[in-house]
Amino acid sequence: MLEDHPMDGERIQQDVSFCRRYLLRVANGDGRGTVIPFPGSSTYANEAVIQTCVPRNGKLLIHSNGAYGDRLMEICVAMGQPYKLVRTPPTQPASMWELRQALMSDPTITHMMVIHCETSSGIINPVEDMAELCQETDKGLLIDAVSSFGVLELDMQQLGFEAIVLGSNKCLEGPPGLAWVIADERKLVNRKGNARSLSLDIWDQWQYLERSGCFRFTPPTHVVAAVAQALREHEKEGGRKARLDRYQRNRRRLVDGMRVMGFETLLPDNIAAPIVATFLQPEGPRYDFMHLCNGMARRGFHIFPGRLAVPNTLRIGCIGALNESKMDAAIATIGDLLEEMGITMPERSRSTADSCGP
Amino acid sequence: MLEDHPMDGERIQQDVSFCRRYLLRVANGDGRGTVIPFPGSSTYANEAVIQTCVPRNGKLLIHSNGAYGDRLMEICVAMGQPYKLVRTPPTQPASMWELRQALMSDPTITHMMVIHCETSSGIINPVEDMAELCQETDKGLLIDAVSSFGVLELDMQQLGFEAIVLGSNKCLEGPPGLAWVIADERKLVNRKGNARSLSLDIWDQWQYLERSGCFRFTPPTHVVAAVAQALREHEKEGGRKARLDRYQRNRRRLVDGMRVMGFETLLPDNIAAPIVATFLQPEGPRYDFMHLCNGMARRGFHIFPGRLAVPNTLRIGCIGALNESKMDAAIATIGDLLEEMGITMPERSRSTADSCGP
Repeated sequence: MLEDHPMDGERIQQDVSFCRRYLLRVANGDGRGTVIPFPGSSTYANEAVIQTCVPRNGKLLIHSNGAYGDRLMEICVAMGQPYKLVRTPPTQPASMWELRQALMSDPTITHMMVIHCETSSGIINPVEDMAELCQETDKGLLIDAVSSFGVLELDMQQLGFEAIVLGSNKCLEGPPGLAWVIADERKLVNRKGNARSLSLDIWDQWQYLERSGCFRFTPPTHVVAAVAQALREHEKEGGRKARLDRYQRNRRRLVDGMRVMGFETLLPDNIAAPIVATFLQPEGPRYDFMHLCNGMARRGFHIFPGRLAVPNTLRIGCIGALNESKMDAAIATIGDLLEEMGITMPERSRSTADSCGP
Repeated sequence: MLEDHPMDGERIQQDVSFCRRYLLRVANGDGRGTVIPFPGSSTYANEAVIQTCVPRNGKLLIHSNGAYGDRLMEICVAMGQPYKLVRTPPTQPASMWELRQALMSDPTITHMMVIHCETSSGIINPVEDMAELCQETDKGLLIDAVSSFGVLELDMQQLGFEAIVLGSNKCLEGPPGLAWVIADERKLVNRKGNARSLSLDIWDQWQYLERSGCFRFTPPTHVVAAVAQALREHEKEGGRKARLDRYQRNRRRLVDGMRVMGFETLLPDNIAAPIVATFLQPEGPRYDFMHLCNGMARRGFHIFPGRLAVPNTLRIGCIGALNESKMDAAIATIGDLLEEMGITMPERSRSTADSCGP
């Protein structure tokens, strides 16, 4: 008995139903896709997509240029799922030539999976080209869109992907604890009994949801409510394009400011997502990364020191409830902390800095 | 960059560390057990325990007398994990004679798993006897303590279980979205690489946590903070015994009041947990379960109509931020709704009602 409980069954069903409709619309998936909520971290949902969509005797071609791509391989290793890994360096997007070669040389490959925006560096992989290759060769395309969905375009009608995975806590600006899968219904319907796990079976979660309107297992009620609110705010802001625009302005301000102070970006602007910017760290003995991290945290700017694609880099996020004046404040703080460490970086004039693209 | 974000890394590490210490203390597991947070629903954690602890060529003896016991079987079916199921009717606790027979007749059985309190009826299974049997026959004991932990006793030193699974959202009164596993370190240390899933690998989550203090994958930060607060409140209330006492008083008040109105409980009091009380529904055409459910919801009392062990029963929870006056209000509401439906139930005098046990 849940007396005075804010989350009665009807409310959560309405929230889930709204989220499913809204996310499908953002993906341009009406009439083709279905949206399935998946509690837990996005890694669970990535594994669930592999468990459910890749036949047990199928093979998954994985592209990786960072920590999150490598994790897809770790999932396959744990599952005993046959896979083939194609790596490119952290500063290079997926090579279409290499992926085509891999597909051609191994006809047992049934699916391809890629990270849309590899958060460990911020690099964007060319999902449009990959979708074309998959359509041409009749392979299923799976995309980890955890840190891109809601900002970068992922059009289901155009890309024809089999499934994508979204997180609630990146560009959708909700709390963590609930991921989502958008899957092609015509393909998912054939995946009954393929997963080697009850918990990680997307098909089963989907069917139960369609039948009953409920999750199979107790949902993270409070997170669901918060994510529904976050999506209403995404809609209110003007949807995907408006949010992309704000994040691009955030990144432009950040990168321009950091370049003025002498920092260089790891990636050229044309392959960098407006999600996170990665900078090369200053050289020399005076620079102390943890001093910078802790100093920023003391002033309310939290950066995550782990999961880096390239050692000695510094990642600063551009997403969340941030705007250009917040980016200015972060830049000023970094400037102060460099001064504290006694570091003078070679100044680059604003005019010679690369212009900062999406 | 998480500017002004309430959940910085240090805070969540402190919360997780407090929760782990506190839960271990409640289980009397100091020096023997380790506590591992596991995001998602408790079913995920149950599967993770099976994935991690039961060897691939081992066999799991499952006892079931309800929906949650049956789900353990569904997990094994999905995984392809060899198992043997021993069922007792929903109104009968596990039969030690049958479990012993099952163990004796199949030496390939390595582990036994049972639901401590089967929430679909509220029945308590005799984990103490099962622990004795497992110790005698050298089998690993796994317990789903999702709806009992924090109230019913589960003493690690005494029971010697290999692992138990807790939910945050039952007797611990936190929000859903985070389960916990308490495992015997000396056994868990040998389970590296046993899980056939990356996400559901308890060993890996444990090792990563010990090494770094962090979750392997993005934790449900807000849920973690709320659960830590819920545990502080559990401690403040006086711990397990004080909460057991309050829930017992809740159930006693509820069952006494319902009996006065003529309801009968599904279970005799000596095998019923003070978590949820199950009543036989009134007979006759005037009784309408959904009328009762909806009428209660309108007055702020939410009961869950699904997941019943026995058809035509009515379950009312006794857990959460409830006390005896709330139970009185619920009983009065049920009385009003019966009157609305024009139902007069045979009155049983309080003196002839069974006394309400633990």
